Amino acid sequence: MSVTSAQGFRAAGVTAGLKASGKPDLALVVNDGPLDVAVGVFTSNRVVAAPVVWSRQVVADGRARAVVLNSGGANACTGPEGFADTHRTAEHVAGLLDVSAGDVVVCSTGLIGERLPMDVLLAGADAAASGLAADGGGDAAIAIMTTDTVPKTAVATGAGGAWTVGGMAKGAGMLAPGLATMLCTITTDAVVDAATADAALRAATATTFDRVDSDGCMSTNDTVVLLASGASGVAASLAELTEALTAVCAELARKLVADAEGASHDISVRVVGATSEDAAVAVARAVTRSNLFKAAIFGNDPNWGRVLSAVGTVPESVAPFDALTLDVSINGVQVCRAGGVGEDRTLVDLAADREVHVVVDLHAGPAEATVWTNDLTHDYVHENSAYST
Amino acid sequence: MSVTSAQGFRAAGVTAGLKASGKPDLALVVNDGPLDVAVGVFTSNRVVAAPVVWSRQVVADGRARAVVLNSGGANACTGPEGFADTHRTAEHVAGLLDVSAGDVVVCSTGLIGERLPMDVLLAGADAAASGLAADGGGDAAIAIMTTDTVPKTAVATGAGGAWTVGGMAKGAGMLAPGLATMLCTITTDAVVDAATADAALRAATATTFDRVDSDGCMSTNDTVVLLASGASGVAASLAELTEALTAVCAELARKLVADAEGASHDISVRVVGATSEDAAVAVARAVTRSNLFKAAIFGNDPNWGRVLSAVGTVPESVAPFDALTLDVSINGVQVCRAGGVGEDRTLVDLAADREVHVVVDLHAGPAEATVWTNDLTHDYVHENSAYST
Repeated sequence: MSVTSAQGFRAAGVTAGLKASGKPDLALVVNDGPLDVAVGVFTSNRVVAAPVVWSRQVVADGRARAVVLNSGGANACTGPEGFADTHRTAEHVAGLLDVSAGDVVVCSTGLIGERLPMDVLLAGADAAASGLAADGGGDAAIAIMTTDTVPKTAVATGAGGAWTVGGMAKGAGMLAPGLATMLCTITTDAVVDAATADAALRAATATTFDRVDSDGCMSTNDTVVLLASGASGVAASLAELTEALTAVCAELARKLVADAEGASHDISVRVVGATSEDAAVAVARAVTRSNLFKAAIFGNDPNWGRVLSAVGTVPESVAPFDALTLDVSINGVQVCRAGGVGEDRTLVDLAADREVHVVVDLHAGPAEATVWTNDLTHDYVHENSAYST
Repeated sequence: MSVTSAQGFRAAGVTAGLKASGKPDLALVVNDGPLDVAVGVFTSNRVVAAPVVWSRQVVADGRARAVVLNSGGANACTGPEGFADTHRTAEHVAGLLDVSAGDVVVCSTGLIGERLPMDVLLAGADAAASGLAADGGGDAAIAIMTTDTVPKTAVATGAGGAWTVGGMAKGAGMLAPGLATMLCTITTDAVVDAATADAALRAATATTFDRVDSDGCMSTNDTVVLLASGASGVAASLAELTEALTAVCAELARKLVADAEGASHDISVRVVGATSEDAAVAVARAVTRSNLFKAAIFGNDPNWGRVLSAVGTVPESVAPFDALTLDVSINGVQVCRAGGVGEDRTLVDLAADREVHVVVDLHAGPAEATVWTNDLTHDYVHENSAYST
């Protein structure tokens, strides 16, 4: 059900014809109210796609009525013409829904540097508007897929089931969100104001999507939009909404990692004993960005030397620690103790499970954080050399 | 000839038995003077191998008599025992050469996290000392190879041939130097003092080894040592020595990239129009660390969208530029103009040559810099998942 699990929303997913594969490629999510609260977080990449420029403006006033999303083209690096295409898409959808164009969020994903075929896209929008349904969330989640192999949805409830949060996301490559991740639309029927919704969404994404670093490459199109209809009639506090949003975002983020391009392992790098959460994140991210470490995990090699060599690249000013006290465990085996050799590395079994758990103890403070990544595989290289995204 | 091209040096390369392959694995370079000037630059990784800790101390006074280098084991993350092994190596070589242990630089490369077999290593040192020869530089260059497929040497002269600079280097993976690269020993017979030698070496490495970023992974063992014998009797100025050292370092750095693990393309990313050289380096490094860009080049795909998405990750505070004025050319074809679509990307031929030249124009200032990297290939993944380094 995803984005239509909460009351007050309709959605559709159709095949406009943007993808050569002929698979569904256009989704529409509409908030029927009574509220029209909308907030968003976007990529921190300085090279941003036209839809990001547009949609930042749309949610600036905390209100929106609809989100139109297409796969089959990112509309990034397409100049003023690309921005005009996004504007025209919003105007067209606004006309179909009898709302203001300034209340239509636009999201695009696919190849960078090519214009979208607008006649195809607008005809698809017509079909999507005609097909809007209170159970259309599943179709919408399918229509935003690119190299994803499965649609990704998640649902959580608050206040004992009185209100619901539902979401959908896509993303399998260029997956190292800077403030968000690829495309994600979340809906809720809780009664909230825009300020509360915005604070809750930022808190939820900071510890979920921002802790995914699949391949170190930040997208130009990352967008997470939250729409609130208020249709449940029940108010949510900031704490309640943050909890439910975090649950939905964490589940979607985990599903992104599980479906990352070419990956054979999902790897959690948990850094403990840090002086601050930021320090722990910086150290974890250094490990998750080491191609040598990621290739070793692909080879089921518990190569802790590559963990330490990555940890050591983090500046002292960012994460204070003493290199001679570092501990590393992999899947529960403490292979490195006090910066040197620990338990026998052959005790680590990486072949048994897709999940790999690395823990680095900095012995410098009380803070910790976990970043998820994937291994570096032949299939990742193949998919990203043979397929233009 | 490499490190024995300059007068006043002897070298040897022998098979001690540290490598399972039975290939040469121990090198010795000796400075017979009259000067014993020695300076070095080392990895900026905070996790450093025992030989780096030792050798930093050795060259702290600007003097050394010999460099002993082994492949087949990095002696990194080996605790106090590993440091004792390095110390013992220096003491042993010092005894063989009748010099002070505090004048023997030690370098090691290979797997992190394992002790070296000291009896094997010291017997190898005996053999190397017996085999020292004024034409031993070639053998020494072979003995420091790990996954390198060819030995890497370079020679330059100064003052119209009055003095010579010669060097050898190894390195094919974990190749993103922080202040130096893997192992490199350079000799000169110019008459210089330690301060001049140090300034020249830092200037030379800053624009050569520091501009190589093959796989984004910084080593724990990076060491570049320069020995000066003064045997030519001719003094070199800072400018002259810097010029000759830069030529040798640039040639060795280029050879490292050309022999990088699994690579099928050598890629120069030149950033022009930057506000400062540091800004240009930061932008170039962001591109050279994009796995998606590197995989695209492997697939002979001139995917400039992946260049722009990487450029956009550099913070404004580091490199000011306007994303809407960015130009990108690949092998001379301007595929991106003003942040949007430029010439037809199919005009770019990447299959014809191992070298690929990317130019990014930030249109923000007069500064420029070039960073070299490699493509991301099946063979890189294979070599680094099947082989523990």
